[in-house]
Amino acid sequence: MEIAQNFMGPLATNTMTRINENGNVVGTIIVNCEGFPETTTLDSLTAATYSTHMRNLSHHASNALKEIDVTDELVVLRLVSKKSEAVVAPDHEFHLIVVMRKT
Amino acid sequence: MEIAQNFMGPLATNTMTRINENGNVVGTIIVNCEGFPETTTLDSLTAATYSTHMRNLSHHASNALKEIDVTDELVVLRLVSKKSEAVVAPDHEFHLIVVMRKT
Repeated sequence: MEIAQNFMGPLATNTMTRINENGNVVGTIIVNCEGFPETTTLDSLTAATYSTHMRNLSHHASNALKEIDVTDELVVLRLVSKKSEAVVAPDHEFHLIVVMRKT
Repeated sequence: MEIAQNFMGPLATNTMTRINENGNVVGTIIVNCEGFPETTTLDSLTAATYSTHMRNLSHHASNALKEIDVTDELVVLRLVSKKSEAVVAPDHEFHLIVVMRKT
């Protein structure tokens, strides 16, 4: 959380706190533009695994969207699996990943 | 719709009709296991573009999930962009893709 506070300002910390207060949220990760988890509420191995995969997926999705409509832009990618849900919100500098329990 | 009726039975046709009745739905596509649109309510070029990209994305997502938890399985992948939303529900034989207007 300190990194979120120092590098992204209090708004990022507030957003992460607000998201984590939701009972279904397992954890959040903020991934920097180099693909490394900057700050997370998950253990570092889980955070690294989710960061790699979700960032790759959001790149693939973003490229696919650009091929469908070059003026379009990815806002959110949501993966629903049998056991969990994962959401990635890409941004120029950071990607926000939220991992949730299945409701 | 005839293909859905003949190959997938009346349930598939009912499901497609029900989905298309939703005011926000632009169109639906059923993609076979070879990646070709079997039946769609979109024009064939749009259907082919979405089929290729959404099927690829669902494969990538499925593989990523397996690397996170080998017993997990993708149920739905949802792409929200600035202009539209696209959902893919993968299955062993067919993929259902729904393209929606942004609400």
